[in-house]
Amino acid sequence: VEAVPLDDRGLLLGDGLFETLLWSNGALVLGVEHGGRMIRGAGVLGLPPPDLEAFLACAEAAVRDTGLTAERCAVRVTLTAGSGGRGLDRPAAPLPRLFATAAATTRSTEPAKLVISEVRRNAGSPTSRVKSLAYLDNILAREEARRSGADEAVMLNTEGRVACAAVANIFWLEGRILSTPAIEAGCLDGIMRAGTIRAARALGLEVRESFSGPGALIAADAVFLTSSLIGVRPASSLGDTIYGSSRVVEALAAAVAPIC
Amino acid sequence: VEAVPLDDRGLLLGDGLFETLLWSNGALVLGVEHGGRMIRGAGVLGLPPPDLEAFLACAEAAVRDTGLTAERCAVRVTLTAGSGGRGLDRPAAPLPRLFATAAATTRSTEPAKLVISEVRRNAGSPTSRVKSLAYLDNILAREEARRSGADEAVMLNTEGRVACAAVANIFWLEGRILSTPAIEAGCLDGIMRAGTIRAARALGLEVRESFSGPGALIAADAVFLTSSLIGVRPASSLGDTIYGSSRVVEALAAAVAPIC
Repeated sequence: VEAVPLDDRGLLLGDGLFETLLWSNGALVLGVEHGGRMIRGAGVLGLPPPDLEAFLACAEAAVRDTGLTAERCAVRVTLTAGSGGRGLDRPAAPLPRLFATAAATTRSTEPAKLVISEVRRNAGSPTSRVKSLAYLDNILAREEARRSGADEAVMLNTEGRVACAAVANIFWLEGRILSTPAIEAGCLDGIMRAGTIRAARALGLEVRESFSGPGALIAADAVFLTSSLIGVRPASSLGDTIYGSSRVVEALAAAVAPIC
Repeated sequence: VEAVPLDDRGLLLGDGLFETLLWSNGALVLGVEHGGRMIRGAGVLGLPPPDLEAFLACAEAAVRDTGLTAERCAVRVTLTAGSGGRGLDRPAAPLPRLFATAAATTRSTEPAKLVISEVRRNAGSPTSRVKSLAYLDNILAREEARRSGADEAVMLNTEGRVACAAVANIFWLEGRILSTPAIEAGCLDGIMRAGTIRAARALGLEVRESFSGPGALIAADAVFLTSSLIGVRPASSLGDTIYGSSRVVEALAAAVAPIC
């Protein structure tokens, strides 16, 4: 696939899914996990799931075609619902379209300045729990954060509970208790979120998946973001609240470093 | 534009807008109104707006290229945020991409069977009030309606108020009072919605833009949908609630017939 026809449902309606994963040291990182999440997401959207082998081959081919096999790359794999149908209605047998692109990437090591966005995650839609192509709310949240001089937006859900950042999961630490929004709060089932929870338990932390208002972030000792491209990225501030460095967060960042 | 490159932000992230308008009797119907709405929507999303002349020329060219100038056509005009940027972040100066497609269409004259969808409209996002490419919630609502044997889904917003149908605005009548959700309830500023409100006032009806729960629909004498492609389409039922025919709704359908 080098271009997408004008009747593609991903292009026209956001009907599809994507994954962003890392290529590092000559191989995909957690490719099976990312492929598995796309397969589960296709189930949520009612689309025929991609084959895991096809997912991995597509991602690898994108890196090889770009000639970046020796670099650290971000690989984006996209699955659209394919062509056809009539208005909102899908064709009787959708034929999804799978494609991937790759680009060299570096990891942000600077702590992130956060703000709480006015744009809410929709707690009343299954699309808030999959990595769908309908990402416009997150774009607007990110633009709002940039305009206010911050790096990233914290999104609350429509019930006012913390859900996620525009393009990352979020965690906060209070003493030895590490909290992150429950999936049902409207966040993505992040691959690095899961890795961080495992690492935290191995370090003896208590992990809670919660439905908390933004006050929990303001009261926390430390806040950090996770994603497959950034690993664990500490927050330096949330609005007027300043966070110092945290040895626990540093230990978590070191623990997940082999997979980011 | 005959295909869209793989780095298009509309394709990758739903970053863009669309309009669906009618071609009838050899001309676009309410083309200036649809173009104006896309221009306003671009302002909401922070994108450079299309030129009105370019919008109209693009829509007309799509009909002529398809050779359907003598038919009744649905014309879909799409504006994406264009190529480039990095992840969620748009490029410093986005160059939007405008394209259109056309297909012959017939008007549904059958009354519609409605059900209330489990998928909610996001009352906490500006994207619920523009016709954005991030339409996946509406697709899932429509699929849910089809699975239950209905024709169209009624979507409540995240606060439980009636917002719209998956691909139409909604109205209900009680005596001589015609109600429709307020724009702030999370519905689109429909061109046919505005035309219907004008027609209703000309017929001496009182029109209310409201924040109402689904009980208002169940208690109504009549319920109907509006869109540029369907005009006024009566509902025959909402779940177990059956609606008879209504002379007032027939008069409204006749009043808007010249523009649909």
